Amino acid sequence: MNGLLTDLYELTMAAGYFESGKVAEKATFEFSIRHLPDRRNYAVIAGIPQIVDYLLTLSFTAEEIAYLRALPQFAQVSPAFFDYLHDFRFTGDLFAVPEGTVLFAGEPVLTIRAPVIEAQIPETYLLSAVTFQTLIASKAARCTTAAAGRPVMEFGTRRAHTPEAGTLGARAAYLGGCAGTSNTLAGYRYGIPVMGTAAHSWVMSFPCETDAFRKLQRVLGPSTVHLIDTYDTLEGARRAAALGGPMWGVRLDSGDFDTLSRQVRAILDEAGHTGAKIMASGNLDEYRIRDLVSSGAPIDSFGVGTQLATSGDAPIMGAIYKMVELDISGIKRFTAKYSEDKTSFPGAKQIFRDVARDVVARAGECGKGEALLRPIILGGRLIEPLPGLEQARERAAQSLANLPPALRQLEVTEPWPVIQSRELRALISQTRSNLGA
Amino acid sequence: MNGLLTDLYELTMAAGYFESGKVAEKATFEFSIRHLPDRRNYAVIAGIPQIVDYLLTLSFTAEEIAYLRALPQFAQVSPAFFDYLHDFRFTGDLFAVPEGTVLFAGEPVLTIRAPVIEAQIPETYLLSAVTFQTLIASKAARCTTAAAGRPVMEFGTRRAHTPEAGTLGARAAYLGGCAGTSNTLAGYRYGIPVMGTAAHSWVMSFPCETDAFRKLQRVLGPSTVHLIDTYDTLEGARRAAALGGPMWGVRLDSGDFDTLSRQVRAILDEAGHTGAKIMASGNLDEYRIRDLVSSGAPIDSFGVGTQLATSGDAPIMGAIYKMVELDISGIKRFTAKYSEDKTSFPGAKQIFRDVARDVVARAGECGKGEALLRPIILGGRLIEPLPGLEQARERAAQSLANLPPALRQLEVTEPWPVIQSRELRALISQTRSNLGA
Repeated sequence: MNGLLTDLYELTMAAGYFESGKVAEKATFEFSIRHLPDRRNYAVIAGIPQIVDYLLTLSFTAEEIAYLRALPQFAQVSPAFFDYLHDFRFTGDLFAVPEGTVLFAGEPVLTIRAPVIEAQIPETYLLSAVTFQTLIASKAARCTTAAAGRPVMEFGTRRAHTPEAGTLGARAAYLGGCAGTSNTLAGYRYGIPVMGTAAHSWVMSFPCETDAFRKLQRVLGPSTVHLIDTYDTLEGARRAAALGGPMWGVRLDSGDFDTLSRQVRAILDEAGHTGAKIMASGNLDEYRIRDLVSSGAPIDSFGVGTQLATSGDAPIMGAIYKMVELDISGIKRFTAKYSEDKTSFPGAKQIFRDVARDVVARAGECGKGEALLRPIILGGRLIEPLPGLEQARERAAQSLANLPPALRQLEVTEPWPVIQSRELRALISQTRSNLGA
Repeated sequence: MNGLLTDLYELTMAAGYFESGKVAEKATFEFSIRHLPDRRNYAVIAGIPQIVDYLLTLSFTAEEIAYLRALPQFAQVSPAFFDYLHDFRFTGDLFAVPEGTVLFAGEPVLTIRAPVIEAQIPETYLLSAVTFQTLIASKAARCTTAAAGRPVMEFGTRRAHTPEAGTLGARAAYLGGCAGTSNTLAGYRYGIPVMGTAAHSWVMSFPCETDAFRKLQRVLGPSTVHLIDTYDTLEGARRAAALGGPMWGVRLDSGDFDTLSRQVRAILDEAGHTGAKIMASGNLDEYRIRDLVSSGAPIDSFGVGTQLATSGDAPIMGAIYKMVELDISGIKRFTAKYSEDKTSFPGAKQIFRDVARDVVARAGECGKGEALLRPIILGGRLIEPLPGLEQARERAAQSLANLPPALRQLEVTEPWPVIQSRELRALISQTRSNLGA
């Protein structure tokens, strides 16, 4: 399954490795963060469970192999390669940081060590699955930080890049600190709290707004959130207030939230509904949330959609997946790339997180602090169940809490120190001089 | 299937419509473009086949229904609603513009007419599937325009927001004018030309670059594209030139493409390989392609990844899905939303595309030019097979060719005129005054 969900060049290289007698060569590939996304001080890593599922089920169907065989690129490839694909399974090792770990530019996220073809094919899927979910988890962490304790709900599936991205994005947003999601499938699949009551169409389907509000209360009881901006927000607030409980509260979805929330609060309070809450949604992001919080707008919770589900201000993360070692019949060769604007560093690595800095070292080095990369799959088998989503969410919260306050702020600041160990630096210059680069 | 892949409020509203005796009320919902994405003069509509599949298979499994039933929001909902979900199918109508049609702000993309619950639930999926693919198809059209006849390949699955988004994005990119994709699954599923040869890891897996190039040629023959920037681009070009054919050519993946392409062209030509081509990839978008084309850089084709697969400069499209009509036992009520910054217009509509403008009219009006919205599903059944991807791609090319040249350029310019018919304007003001808004 999923064997074809990769760039064709991974498969032409697979044929090339096969035809060049490299099937048994063991390669180590490293997925690392080259640059943080724009306007980000950190990345909250997410998507490890999805790539574990992928690696454990990776295979090719007979129809998929027949498709490849008919492509012009495979015209000269021997039949033995297609037999090889037929029996293909991932038999290698995966080392990764735990889901929810905060990382920085220049750090490895995961390492794959496997026969070279098995390590090569996953590149495309791994990059896409992990960078996307990491972008969303990181954006969610920023929105949650800005909300300063008020719950932030993820509402963005309709703006996500496919409905499936919305569902995985909802998971990542929860991991990054959101209190829940509007995506029902994400609730069902991942056990995330789900929230939602009614849209404008509900109100529009009744001849008058009061009627719509009354009918909603009858169905949803204390879960009721009246959406009050279909026609006129303050009029809507008065109608909701006149009806009274049961209700959770009201939702503002357009207009100037600072002014409207104060006016609506006054309307609710005057009618005696001091316990009714106000939620705001519509064109929110971490900057607007921060401004509303600091102006003291009486908003109890925020719904963030578009900007969160697309990581709108930073939809791209510069991550790479590069070969760092090759083991040819027991002889190890270190590999790297030294072209002008895109460099990669040789050798399998480990990150040691100390109190005030990270040290990127060679794998097997002794270091101070927490060793972040841990074995997940060995010899094609998951060595123990992955931590659950709640545990990953807790790790993200803890990782963020351990950062210096300036790094948790929305503005880009002095980066967390990431240095290379002396042994790693020695390997880099050694490899460089061996390559004559 | 897919019943839960929606925002929870669609399902709480469904319960509300059911409990309020509205199951038989027929609603018309309209999906329309509120604003074009940033920096765009048009939108190439894509994703209709995906939403047809969705509507034709939409249902709820017993487990999904049990999950809903246990949510606090459904605590007061009667058992009859869950029986209703068990038998739920889409039995309504879908009208849409043909895949590949170019549209503008203020225009409806599709209309759903169905019992209100059946029309409400699809909102989330429809918006996500169509806006994403439309963003990618539109970006691809811009890249293709900028390349002025040189083929543009889509290379971006690794940067897409999930691997599945990469696959659907590859389809949309092809529809928008790309010559093919690197995504093998997209080739298999949709019959799109696929392309790819080797990455840096291929070169790095051999002790020297020449050896890597030689082995690649042996496997790929005339499909060979040597990636020449692993260590030093010009040295790489010399090594490829020294080997000679068979090869398609070489690929530049970093550095200053304008300078490097001229130097590499000279190296290839001096060695007598005047037929060998040069492809460029890496950090490209429509603006860089335009600059390279206008400077006369000898680049034969472009590979665009990150920016295309994410619509990086415009990852969001302001589309809405709003109730426009409600039919209660044969009495038609028109619905609209008139809050300050988010307005929707009442009534089912049609677009007439005339020589120099579009007229948005009421459905059933007589108009001049091509009527763009056509029936696709009637009474829950597909009325005829959808046009294939090649036909949609042809329609996109034709739609773009019919635009005034200024609108096809990269800069934002005077919009294509979209006006509302007199009848539609009358309905808008009538509805507004009925609502007292």
